[in-house]
Amino acid sequence: MYETLKFTLNRFKNNKIFELSVVAVIIISALEIGAKTFELTDNAVSITDILDIFITVFFLFELTIRFITEENKKDFFKHGWNIFDTLVVVISLIPISNSEMALLARLVRIFRVLRMVSVVPELRILINSLIKALPQLGYVVLLMFIIFYIYAAIGSFMFSAINPVLWGDIAISMLTLFRVMTFEDWTDIQYETMEVYPYSWIFYLTFIFFTAFAFLNMVIGIVVNVMEEEHALERSEKEPSMTDLQNEIQELKALINDKLK
Amino acid sequence: MYETLKFTLNRFKNNKIFELSVVAVIIISALEIGAKTFELTDNAVSITDILDIFITVFFLFELTIRFITEENKKDFFKHGWNIFDTLVVVISLIPISNSEMALLARLVRIFRVLRMVSVVPELRILINSLIKALPQLGYVVLLMFIIFYIYAAIGSFMFSAINPVLWGDIAISMLTLFRVMTFEDWTDIQYETMEVYPYSWIFYLTFIFFTAFAFLNMVIGIVVNVMEEEHALERSEKEPSMTDLQNEIQELKALINDKLK
Amino acid sequence: MYETLKFTLNRFKNNKIFELSVVAVIIISALEIGAKTFELTDNAVSITDILDIFITVFFLFELTIRFITEENKKDFFKHGWNIFDTLVVVISLIPISNSEMALLARLVRIFRVLRMVSVVPELRILINSLIKALPQLGYVVLLMFIIFYIYAAIGSFMFSAINPVLWGDIAISMLTLFRVMTFEDWTDIQYETMEVYPYSWIFYLTFIFFTAFAFLNMVIGIVVNVMEEEHALERSEKEPSMTDLQNEIQELKALINDKLK
Amino acid sequence: MYETLKFTLNRFKNNKIFELSVVAVIIISALEIGAKTFELTDNAVSITDILDIFITVFFLFELTIRFITEENKKDFFKHGWNIFDTLVVVISLIPISNSEMALLARLVRIFRVLRMVSVVPELRILINSLIKALPQLGYVVLLMFIIFYIYAAIGSFMFSAINPVLWGDIAISMLTLFRVMTFEDWTDIQYETMEVYPYSWIFYLTFIFFTAFAFLNMVIGIVVNVMEEEHALERSEKEPSMTDLQNEIQELKALINDKLK
Repeated sequence: MYETLKFTLNRFKNNKIFELSVVAVIIISALEIGAKTFELTDNAVSITDILDIFITVFFLFELTIRFITEENKKDFFKHGWNIFDTLVVVISLIPISNSEMALLARLVRIFRVLRMVSVVPELRILINSLIKALPQLGYVVLLMFIIFYIYAAIGSFMFSAINPVLWGDIAISMLTLFRVMTFEDWTDIQYETMEVYPYSWIFYLTFIFFTAFAFLNMVIGIVVNVMEEEHALERSEKEPSMTDLQNEIQELKALINDKLK
Repeated sequence: MYETLKFTLNRFKNNKIFELSVVAVIIISALEIGAKTFELTDNAVSITDILDIFITVFFLFELTIRFITEENKKDFFKHGWNIFDTLVVVISLIPISNSEMALLARLVRIFRVLRMVSVVPELRILINSLIKALPQLGYVVLLMFIIFYIYAAIGSFMFSAINPVLWGDIAISMLTLFRVMTFEDWTDIQYETMEVYPYSWIFYLTFIFFTAFAFLNMVIGIVVNVMEEEHALERSEKEPSMTDLQNEIQELKALINDKLK
Repeated sequence: MYETLKFTLNRFKNNKIFELSVVAVIIISALEIGAKTFELTDNAVSITDILDIFITVFFLFELTIRFITEENKKDFFKHGWNIFDTLVVVISLIPISNSEMALLARLVRIFRVLRMVSVVPELRILINSLIKALPQLGYVVLLMFIIFYIYAAIGSFMFSAINPVLWGDIAISMLTLFRVMTFEDWTDIQYETMEVYPYSWIFYLTFIFFTAFAFLNMVIGIVVNVMEEEHALERSEKEPSMTDLQNEIQELKALINDKLK
Repeated sequence: MYETLKFTLNRFKNNKIFELSVVAVIIISALEIGAKTFELTDNAVSITDILDIFITVFFLFELTIRFITEENKKDFFKHGWNIFDTLVVVISLIPISNSEMALLARLVRIFRVLRMVSVVPELRILINSLIKALPQLGYVVLLMFIIFYIYAAIGSFMFSAINPVLWGDIAISMLTLFRVMTFEDWTDIQYETMEVYPYSWIFYLTFIFFTAFAFLNMVIGIVVNVMEEEHALERSEKEPSMTDLQNEIQELKALINDKLK
C-alpha cells in the first residue's frame, strides 16, 4: 500500500500543475512579506495571518511528498537544497510569541523567498556555479584579505589618534578600508589624516592600486574559467579534436604502407 | 493609376536625398526641442511654432509614403518600428490646449528624436541586439531581483524604525538598496543603522558582494555570448570546420581502399 | 653642398644620442612646467626663463633637421604628428607680453609635454589605436548621445522649475546627467525631484540602465575587436589555416587518383 | 659533521609539520598585531610581549635552517623572497626603546604578515604574475602619467587662484585629478571652477574620457595577455598544432609519391 501511495505521489509531484503551484505559493509568500512592510488595515493583517498558515502547511505538504517519493531516504539530506528547504519549513513551524523572537520569525519567513532558487532549476544552476567558482578564487581572496589586514593594521597604528571612529581598532579599520575601496567619500578620510601625516596619500593610493589589481585578477580569473569551460564543451560536443585528425592521418599512412608493401 | 503613384513614390522613397532629408528633419526636430529649453524671444517662439507644424506635416507625409509603398498593408504593422513611428506621428497630431496636457505634448515631441533610431539602420541593429540579449539574461535578472527583494524585506523589518525615509516599506528599501549598489553615500546609511545594530555592516557587505557577483555574471554572460556568435560567424564564413577536414580524410581512406583492393 | 648637409644631418638625426637628448629636453621642459606651479625664488625664475629659451631653440633646431632630412617636403605635413610638432614650436615662438596672453603662452608650453607622444613610437602606436577605434564605436556613441539628449530634454521640461541650476536648459541637463552616470551624489538630485514627482525615480533608474548597457556594449565592442585582431595576427603569422589543410588534403586526393588511374 | 647537520635540517625543513608550523606562527603573529590595536589589559600586554620574543626567535631559527640547507650560499640572496625574509627578521631584531622608533618597530612587525606570501607558494605565484605584468603595461602607465601631468599643469595654472587647497601646485593637482578619476565628489570641484570659467567642464569631461580610455586599454591588455598564455599552454600541452598536421599530410604525400613511382 505504501508503494501505491509513493507511486501516486510521484505522479502528483511530477505534474506540471503541481510544480507551477509551488512557484505560485512562493510568489504569494514573497508578496505577503512585502505587503507586511506597509501600513496595513486590521482586515489585511488577519488575511496575511491566514495566508501565513496556508503557506506553512503547503510547504510542509510539499516537503513531505518530496521526502516520501525519494527512493533512498538517506540520500534526501545529502542534497544541500533539501536541507535548506527542510530548515526553512521546520523553523517556520516553531510557534513564537515573544516580541523579540517575532523579528526572527519574520526573518525566517523572508528566507522562504529563497526557496524560489531551490525550485527553479535555472537559478539553482546559477547559484551552484557561484559556489563552484569560490574555491578557485580562494587564493586571490586570501591575498586580498592579507592586503586589507596589513593596511588596516598600519592605519590603526598611525591614524587611531586622529579619528578613533574610523581607525579605532583593526576591525573598524578594515571596514573603513572597504569604504575606501568603494571610493565612498574616501578623500574626506584622506584629507583628515594628511593634516597630521602629509604623505599619508601614499597609504591610500597604494591601497587602491593593490586592491584594484587583486579585484581585476579575480574578475579575469572568472572570465577565463567560464570561457575555457565553454570552449571545452563546444569542442567535445560538436567537433573532432586536432588529435583525432592526427590519428586519422596516421592510420592513413599505415594503410598506404600496408597496401603498397 | 494607384499602381503608377505607388511606383513613383517607391522611387521617391528609395531616393538617397529623401532618406537624408528625413534624417535632417529629425535633427531639426531635436534642435527645436533643445532650443525650447532655453529662454526664447517672442520671435524665436513663433519660429518654433511654425517649425513644429512643418515637422508634424513632414513626418505624416513620410509615414504615408511608407504605408502606400508597402506591398502588403497588413505587414506594415507587424514591424515594431512602424508601430512606433505611427504612434509618435498620430499623438503629435492631437490638438492640445490645456496646460497640463501641454507638458505631455512636449514629451511626445521628444520621442520624435527616437525616430533617429528607427531611421538609421545601424542604430536599429544595436537596439535589436539589446532586445535580443534581454531574455538570455532573464534568469540573472530574476536572481538579482530576488536578492534585492530579500534584502529589502530584511532592511524594511529591521531599519524602518531607524529611518523611515530610507527603509519605510519594501519599495523604498529597494530604491535605497539600488543606491547602496551604486556606492552613493552608502556609508552614511550604514553608520546610521550601525548605531542601533552594530553588526548591520554584515547586511551591507553581503549585499554588495552578492549583487556584484550577479552583475559580473551578467556581464560575462553577454561577453561570452557575443564572442560565441563572432566565432561561429567567422568559422562558418571563412574556413572549413574540423569535421569537414575529418570527412575529407575519411573520403581519402575510402579512395585508397577502393583503388588498391 | 645641400645634399652633403642633408646626409650629415640624416646621420645626426638617426644617432641614438640625439634621439635620447630629444626625450631628455622634453622631460626637462615638463619638469620646468611643473616647477613653475610652485612658489619660486627670483633666482629660480630667471633660470626657468633661460631654460625656456633653450628649449624653444632646441625644438626649433630639431624640427628644422627633421624637415631638411625629409626626402619629399610635401609629405612632411601629411603626417599628423609633424603638423602637431610644428604648431607647438611655431606658437611658442610668438612673443607674448600681455598678461592675458601669458596664460595662453603657458598653456601652449604645456602641450610641449605631448611631444613625448610624438617622439616615443610606442606611445604613438597607443594613440593611433585610440583614433582608429573611434569610428568603429561611432554608432554606439551616437546612441549614447541620443539617450542623453532625450533624457536631458525630458529632465529640462519637467525639473527646470524645481532646480534651475541642475536642469535649467538642455545643456546644463546633459552635464547633470553625466554626473548621474558617474553616480556622483545622484540620489540628492533624485530625492529633490521625487518631492514634486514621486515617480521620478523611474527617470533615473531607466537612464542608468540604458547608459550602463550602451557603455557595456562599447567596452565589449573594443574587447572583441582587439581579440579578433590578435587572433588574425597569430593565425596569419604562425600557423597554416584550416583552408590550407583542406587544400593539401585535396591535392593528395588528386595525386592518388592520378597515380592509380 | 656539518654535512650531517645539513642533512638532518633538510629533512626537518621539508617536514610537512614544520611547514605548517611556520604558517601557524605567521598567523599568530598577525593575530597579535591585530590584538594590539585594541585596548588591552596589563596581563594581555605582557602576553603579547612574550609572544613577540617567541615569534622573533622562531623566525630567526627558521631563516637559519633555510640558509644552512641552501646548497650554494651565494644563491640564497638571489631570490627576492629570501632577501625580503632576511630584512624582516633582521630589522625586528634591532632593539628599539625611543617612542618615535616604537612606531617604526610596530610597522616592521606588520610586514611579518607579508611573510605569508613568501611561504605559501600559490600566493607567491600570484605576486610574481603581478610583477611580470607590470613592464608590459609600462607604456600605458606612462601615457596615463602624461595625461595626468598635462591636466595637472593646466589645472594648476588656471584654478590655483580659485582653490589653492585643490590646485595649489602640480603635485596637489595630480592628487585632485586622481580624486576626479575615482568620481569622488568631483562635481563639487567642477562647480567651483565653473563659476570663474564657465567652460571648465570641458577640462573635467575630457580628462575623464582620456583616463577611462587609458584604463580600459590597460585592462584589455591584461585580459588578452592572460588569454593568450592560457591558449598557448593548452595548445602546447594537449593537442598537435596545425603545423604538425600539415607536416603529417606532406609526409603522406611524399610517401605516396615514393611508393607509386
